[in-house]
Amino acid sequence: MTKFWSEMAKRAEPYVPGEQINKENIIKLNTNENPYPPSPHVITAITNEVGNNLRLYPSPTMEGLRTTIAAYYNVTKENVFVGNGSDEVLAFSFMGFFDPGKTILFPDITYSFYPVYAQVFDIAYKTIPLQADFTMDVEAFFNSEGGVIFPNPNAPTSLYLGLDDIEAIVEHNEDNIVVVDEAYIDFATESAVSLTKKYDNLLVIQTMSKSRALAGLRIGFVIGNEELIAALIRMKDSFNSYPVDRLALAGATTAIQDDDYFQWTTQKIITTRERTRQTLTSLGFHVLPSAANFVFATHETMPAKALYEQLRERDILIRYFGTEPIENYVRISIGTDEEMDMFIEAVTEIIER
Amino acid sequence: MTKFWSEMAKRAEPYVPGEQINKENIIKLNTNENPYPPSPHVITAITNEVGNNLRLYPSPTMEGLRTTIAAYYNVTKENVFVGNGSDEVLAFSFMGFFDPGKTILFPDITYSFYPVYAQVFDIAYKTIPLQADFTMDVEAFFNSEGGVIFPNPNAPTSLYLGLDDIEAIVEHNEDNIVVVDEAYIDFATESAVSLTKKYDNLLVIQTMSKSRALAGLRIGFVIGNEELIAALIRMKDSFNSYPVDRLALAGATTAIQDDDYFQWTTQKIITTRERTRQTLTSLGFHVLPSAANFVFATHETMPAKALYEQLRERDILIRYFGTEPIENYVRISIGTDEEMDMFIEAVTEIIER
Repeated sequence: MTKFWSEMAKRAEPYVPGEQINKENIIKLNTNENPYPPSPHVITAITNEVGNNLRLYPSPTMEGLRTTIAAYYNVTKENVFVGNGSDEVLAFSFMGFFDPGKTILFPDITYSFYPVYAQVFDIAYKTIPLQADFTMDVEAFFNSEGGVIFPNPNAPTSLYLGLDDIEAIVEHNEDNIVVVDEAYIDFATESAVSLTKKYDNLLVIQTMSKSRALAGLRIGFVIGNEELIAALIRMKDSFNSYPVDRLALAGATTAIQDDDYFQWTTQKIITTRERTRQTLTSLGFHVLPSAANFVFATHETMPAKALYEQLRERDILIRYFGTEPIENYVRISIGTDEEMDMFIEAVTEIIER
Repeated sequence: MTKFWSEMAKRAEPYVPGEQINKENIIKLNTNENPYPPSPHVITAITNEVGNNLRLYPSPTMEGLRTTIAAYYNVTKENVFVGNGSDEVLAFSFMGFFDPGKTILFPDITYSFYPVYAQVFDIAYKTIPLQADFTMDVEAFFNSEGGVIFPNPNAPTSLYLGLDDIEAIVEHNEDNIVVVDEAYIDFATESAVSLTKKYDNLLVIQTMSKSRALAGLRIGFVIGNEELIAALIRMKDSFNSYPVDRLALAGATTAIQDDDYFQWTTQKIITTRERTRQTLTSLGFHVLPSAANFVFATHETMPAKALYEQLRERDILIRYFGTEPIENYVRISIGTDEEMDMFIEAVTEIIER
């Protein structure tokens, strides 16, 4: 720290992303990436765009991609905002809808970037403890002072909250915004997008980093009431007029259009997840019922930290948080069937040793 | 506006980017893009990366690109920060170094995004009028309360401020940060990067959107003291861990490495600029001595607004601002020789009609 840092820089408590290790043949089950590549049509669309006008600025309004997303979700482009990954979209949401001095609510076990945004933008927050079974205490999110944000499915618990419960939270926060962060929703049952037509205080955030296998391209989007989207556009145009580059716009548009590939890979991951969950259960793990592309698990005898470390020695990365009340849990991203077989083989050896 | 907007959303006065018109055969001299494509090696590097791991997050630390930039500018990677275009980098600089309640200084005629950042982050600012010849009044920037920011060359005036003057401003702001926004520096003489080794309160921002022809890819960077770069990294990691995607990292790295192509296209643009300036002068324009990839000009009889409008009717776009004291000036980006010939032909017809 130097005397030159602003108050904002001094108070910031930055996010720490999952490990990115550059090593061949590592089995990387620690950052919830998709084990399958993006659609071949996405690769073609980007390749076609590469030689074409990279010298020119991209569209600042991103109308093409917004129209494509809108058609897919049966809304209009005025209901859609696009940003440079859902993290940027979350940042603009904190900027556009939450105020210093009005306390917002989010779960105590959740995406660890929320307190980082609150800290940097000086938003007061209160965390609501999850219940003993890690489900959300829905009524505790009623009547917030400044707004509500939570992921659905929640991370890292993988648990899905039904639309009735979400609707109850939205109804009981009629003067404030409720942000539902659906990063993993495509691996669950039903999105809250349908509720955005009924409620003008609900924002639904999604990402192309997980189910659409484009973490490396950085695309997040939001669906909500036109007046809320207008606020996000104001935030973008006060920060960076062109947050999404030409190649990302081309790839993301095609990723939405190739629905067959999306359905096929998503279903494969869900099938592998259920098989993994059953196998882990048979090995003495308690595995939460997952609605995401990862599972959250604890073993009856093997400490989570030792499991994490011993897997790491075998070049298998999973995520260990080490904080109460999840200090004995690990989060395991779902890889290919082959990767999960190698993971299960390693876990079996470690446990039985 | 709705009751749901934050105070920040309400007070924002968003930036309005130059027109992006999707029309074939338009001559686009309005947003200072490079008329030449990026290096063929950049296209190859991106094409090679497309099929490769887009499903995985990019490097959050961007060490590869930072090391490449550092080697080019003879600094270390700890002196380099990279962001999603220089607009994002400017936003992080406002967040990381300027504080509400401490007035910052910038010229009254300058990049129109500065007051937007100040407004959204609630930073008080005072604008220093340019002198009658549009040069900066250097001493008026001494002893700021909260910091200084200006482009060099300045936009839209195209005028270059010498390093002696920059050093004087930096020396007379020893308790505050001076940000020199060098978006157009490669078309001028000398960068202030060399001064960052001597002064711990100087940040130099550059972009790959202009001289490196990658506006469509979104890459900006900063060179400065390690402690200042650390503050920018904190801002990034409190906002978006992965602001630069895999394809942009690959393309930007190669763009720095292919110095021959960069030197060749930059020199061509400078040659075309000087030729354009001479021709415009012979047509009765006063053209400021440009150190950028655009010229700033006013005609002795033809009003700027009429010129802008009549060129637009002929599908030639230039930038007209229409505000005092530059209401009779136009900004003309330098295109290819062929584009500038067509531009000059059209201007000649309009003036002589």
